[in-house]
Amino acid sequence: MPVTDPRSPLALAQGLIRCPSVTPLEGGALAYLAGLLAQAGFSVERPVFSEPGMPDVENLFARIGGDGPCLLFAGHTDVVPPGDAAAWRHDPFGGVVEGTELFGRGAVDMKGGIACMLAAVLAFLDLRGPDFGGAIAFLVTGDEEGPAVNGTVKLLDWARGRGERFSHCLLGEPTNPDVLGEMIKIGRRGSLTADLVVHGVQGHVAYPHRAENPIPGLLRLAQGLLAEPLDAGTAHFDASNLEFTTMDVGNPATNVIPAEARATFNIRFNDLWTPATLAAELERRLGRAAGNAVRYSLAVRPTNSVAFLTAPDAFVDQVAAAIEAETGRRPALSTTGGTSDARFIKDACPVIEFGLVGQTMHQVDERVALADLDRLAAIYGRVLDAYFPGTAETQRQA
Amino acid sequence: MPVTDPRSPLALAQGLIRCPSVTPLEGGALAYLAGLLAQAGFSVERPVFSEPGMPDVENLFARIGGDGPCLLFAGHTDVVPPGDAAAWRHDPFGGVVEGTELFGRGAVDMKGGIACMLAAVLAFLDLRGPDFGGAIAFLVTGDEEGPAVNGTVKLLDWARGRGERFSHCLLGEPTNPDVLGEMIKIGRRGSLTADLVVHGVQGHVAYPHRAENPIPGLLRLAQGLLAEPLDAGTAHFDASNLEFTTMDVGNPATNVIPAEARATFNIRFNDLWTPATLAAELERRLGRAAGNAVRYSLAVRPTNSVAFLTAPDAFVDQVAAAIEAETGRRPALSTTGGTSDARFIKDACPVIEFGLVGQTMHQVDERVALADLDRLAAIYGRVLDAYFPGTAETQRQA
Repeated sequence: MPVTDPRSPLALAQGLIRCPSVTPLEGGALAYLAGLLAQAGFSVERPVFSEPGMPDVENLFARIGGDGPCLLFAGHTDVVPPGDAAAWRHDPFGGVVEGTELFGRGAVDMKGGIACMLAAVLAFLDLRGPDFGGAIAFLVTGDEEGPAVNGTVKLLDWARGRGERFSHCLLGEPTNPDVLGEMIKIGRRGSLTADLVVHGVQGHVAYPHRAENPIPGLLRLAQGLLAEPLDAGTAHFDASNLEFTTMDVGNPATNVIPAEARATFNIRFNDLWTPATLAAELERRLGRAAGNAVRYSLAVRPTNSVAFLTAPDAFVDQVAAAIEAETGRRPALSTTGGTSDARFIKDACPVIEFGLVGQTMHQVDERVALADLDRLAAIYGRVLDAYFPGTAETQRQA
Repeated sequence: MPVTDPRSPLALAQGLIRCPSVTPLEGGALAYLAGLLAQAGFSVERPVFSEPGMPDVENLFARIGGDGPCLLFAGHTDVVPPGDAAAWRHDPFGGVVEGTELFGRGAVDMKGGIACMLAAVLAFLDLRGPDFGGAIAFLVTGDEEGPAVNGTVKLLDWARGRGERFSHCLLGEPTNPDVLGEMIKIGRRGSLTADLVVHGVQGHVAYPHRAENPIPGLLRLAQGLLAEPLDAGTAHFDASNLEFTTMDVGNPATNVIPAEARATFNIRFNDLWTPATLAAELERRLGRAAGNAVRYSLAVRPTNSVAFLTAPDAFVDQVAAAIEAETGRRPALSTTGGTSDARFIKDACPVIEFGLVGQTMHQVDERVALADLDRLAAIYGRVLDAYFPGTAETQRQA
């Protein structure tokens, strides 16, 4: 397609990037999507969700088609802040093409992915019309990079309340570490954060017998947490992993033994664990390490991020085959990396993730190869064709 | 002595406490001392010392007598801040007597001690006159509770430059933990502080293989420092002791592996070590614990606090005998506790420390038992009598 085609992946990605939709701002991005989807025949809804103490967030739900399987395309148009815009080679909201790349915040995470979905769906509908033997829906939030409270969770509830049902979901997050076609995400690890406080007794360093230094106690508890791996991984998951993210005492006086030492750690856990079983394991390890010698408190922060797996099935095969056909690569089926809104969607239908190359996401000069935009749109197109095979005469002319 | 005697230990202590001499302010305390010493026949000097970036500090040096041994009384009139004055039962600078106690900042640390020295010396001179067979000097600084730069160190240099020589020094810090007569300090441990930084590589907690968490490295180094005692103590010293005083990362993001972790520790060390041998031992332990796995930097802060011991001799025996005669207690000869200006004086002459009971020092409601003031003055008086025995007819009538 020439780049002047207003429905090309590039033109659509530029249109989205030029909307400054830093979470929680809509920035025109959802309105832009809504216009194109409505024009193509989708029924489009724009629910706004609220929560006390948080900014309202705009969202989008769109559907086209009739009975039969419903394939859900999911994603977000909100982006993380550009940081120092002057450090960018091009305006982060300019959608500038330099050479073979498109620059801009969201180029890969994930306005580029949304653009490819939209381009594929519009082309599919052009060819097949609205009676393609099922339904296509878009579920797009403006609260993925933020607290994720007024976004996908509520949008799924809202859709369920309206009787919407989905057969499978394809989420367009940038899943490829280095090159398009490497990796499908078929699940995600859970994430749990906890705060540990060791209580001591303040005193003068010259009189340690009158004080109780909490720092050796913290070292002991930390060793107790880290000494043994949580597990060795499972069929589809890496081993669960615990990382201390901070450790703080904040005592500027070099002649004072402090009263308290604090640490925070985060665990990315696999499908062997739930937050509850993990919390119990933490208490067991800490209790054993502490004995009667260390006084501590552990506070596990509430989490909505549990480990889940979408067992490889025919849909995963279809997506993998589409990827291989376009890129020549057989994608790994992975559960690595951070969390995504897939952790919410998995309660509505089987969900997998495939999108662009994530290398520059959240960085200065976030950018995408123009070739990747075209190939990802083509992959999504092949998924649509495979998902809705139709009759011989309605099928796409290869 | 009746409390109305203006030269009683109580009256002198009240006079000093009423001078608000929080470091580095002189507050009238040295002027008050100077007046009384001059009146008793001392030659009195008031050198002021300066250092770029620090406030000027006033000091006092006084001497009386002729040839023969010179007994030096040393101390400080500066005090730590009172903190929240409203939390005190009495004005911290009021010198208020309630029941059998005198309240006020400095009551035991160490305006009370200075008052007892002065009372003893004035009484001794009343009886013996200026030809008592030796010399008595006072070396009093206003910079003991502060940076200790413009105080005793420079005052000793200044005195040496003027040809002053001392035979022994008695420093009046509050050396008794619980009851008067328990403890003489015949040395002090040294103090060394060091800052440890472990270098890692920042990254996302979901991708620990792309980052390098410095916190486990810090745990490992800390264990390496703490695993074995530095020593088992010596004849006159407790074992050297290392205390971590702080450990800080300061990373608020629970999904980020931090780039760096910092810790500070302080060592109170005995006469088996110098700062140089200790620094070498630290590097040895850290190097062994780090192996090739942990990148770290150690910065040992400069210290003028080395361990020293005044070997028990006839002077120590005299002081111990005086204490036992007044209190019925045989004092322990100790090197415990924090540092004091004795660490500087030890280069000029043998120095030991004996003063009041330290329990309330640096606290709200610092106070001293009136009986302790009288007994400490009597002890110092006995020390003077023993140090300058004179002829039979010039001796005090028992």
